[in-house]
Amino acid sequence: MSADLRLFDLAGADDDLRFSPNCWRTRLALAHKGLPVETIAWRFTEKDAIARSGQGKVPVLVAGDKWLYESWDIAEYLEDTYPDRPSLFGCPQGRAGARFVNQWASEVLHPAVARVVVPDIPAALHAKDRDYFRTTREAAFGRSFEAIAAERDEALAALRRTLAPLRSPLAKQSFVAVAAPAYADPAVLGAFQWARVISRVALTAVDDPASAWVEHMLDAYDGLARSAKRMWHD
Amino acid sequence: MSADLRLFDLAGADDDLRFSPNCWRTRLALAHKGLPVETIAWRFTEKDAIARSGQGKVPVLVAGDKWLYESWDIAEYLEDTYPDRPSLFGCPQGRAGARFVNQWASEVLHPAVARVVVPDIPAALHAKDRDYFRTTREAAFGRSFEAIAAERDEALAALRRTLAPLRSPLAKQSFVAVAAPAYADPAVLGAFQWARVISRVALTAVDDPASAWVEHMLDAYDGLARSAKRMWHD
Repeated sequence: MSADLRLFDLAGADDDLRFSPNCWRTRLALAHKGLPVETIAWRFTEKDAIARSGQGKVPVLVAGDKWLYESWDIAEYLEDTYPDRPSLFGCPQGRAGARFVNQWASEVLHPAVARVVVPDIPAALHAKDRDYFRTTREAAFGRSFEAIAAERDEALAALRRTLAPLRSPLAKQSFVAVAAPAYADPAVLGAFQWARVISRVALTAVDDPASAWVEHMLDAYDGLARSAKRMWHD
Repeated sequence: MSADLRLFDLAGADDDLRFSPNCWRTRLALAHKGLPVETIAWRFTEKDAIARSGQGKVPVLVAGDKWLYESWDIAEYLEDTYPDRPSLFGCPQGRAGARFVNQWASEVLHPAVARVVVPDIPAALHAKDRDYFRTTREAAFGRSFEAIAAERDEALAALRRTLAPLRSPLAKQSFVAVAAPAYADPAVLGAFQWARVISRVALTAVDDPASAWVEHMLDAYDGLARSAKRMWHD
């Protein structure tokens, strides 16, 4: 019943290095729904390839003649288009809760992770993306990559404080969505997978409840996230 | 079918001034379930009155021979004890989402609101609570009430940044739980009601989507929160 699905997925110089937190949300949501997808390696500067979506960022999911973007909007599309497959939200309140978790991850967690991992990213990028990435990110941060790299210890400490609202639920339950993963889990895992693929830094201490949850999520969906190629490992 | 329920509810010098964010969560959760409750005005130093709960903070809900505490644990108790009444969570994913929202409110929002409103609180307190309140809170903040009051503008700006993850959902929907309030709403409203009852400061700008949501929540449950006595108004 599923149309052929294609996903434009951010890649480094190596086609197999897929490191976008928002693309990982979508890949995990597709896996949750049991929907096969063809992923297409895409670089920051390949705006023309996704122009039909009407904007310039990934994930972009092509479903028949629909060009969808924004990981949250894609999750809602998948839930509403494939209601008979495993639910991403469970019920209206579950959708609302996942939306808040997703928003918190996008607006609070992603910037905190970016401060830690951004200096590792240029080395992984395709040559044609490097100027674009440095120019846009240094403008967003208001300082150079060298200045960001110099404050990594402080950034890591700040990130670990940021994780506080996750920690006490995860000390008692295996997943953000409690007994089994639902969209709240991919919504947050994207940030961890981003760091795992692209950075040498471990975001959480081994004894942090969030670390055990990351391991559960790496195993989920037949180990999809665990099997991803990493820049600095293997 | 409901046992008689009694709630120890933090009050100021005036028995009718009820300003605890965590007690408001419980009062709104009880209203959501349509459960009548007798509230008992309680002061910080009346530890003996709630000793049977095994700890010293409110809310404490007495349900028959059970002495329950912690607003989240009370919400779960109400949901599980009264499953046929309007649900606070909707489904397991809804419960998980509400738990994250609740945890974020407790660990991120409450401290941010406290920095704004704490200097207003001593004037409202019963004389017997004033020393206790100043000593414990100044120790928690690591500085005097006068020093906290001097940084109020900065605290208010920081609080408004903290509200970011709420703002974009609330720009599109009436409640945190979307179409109608569920526990995610009381979990967050407690902080706003705390400020509304005890402080002269408006936490949000009039055009903030969070302001419209606060108005919806003040009207919910037959206007329970709107009808509360306020320290500096009326």
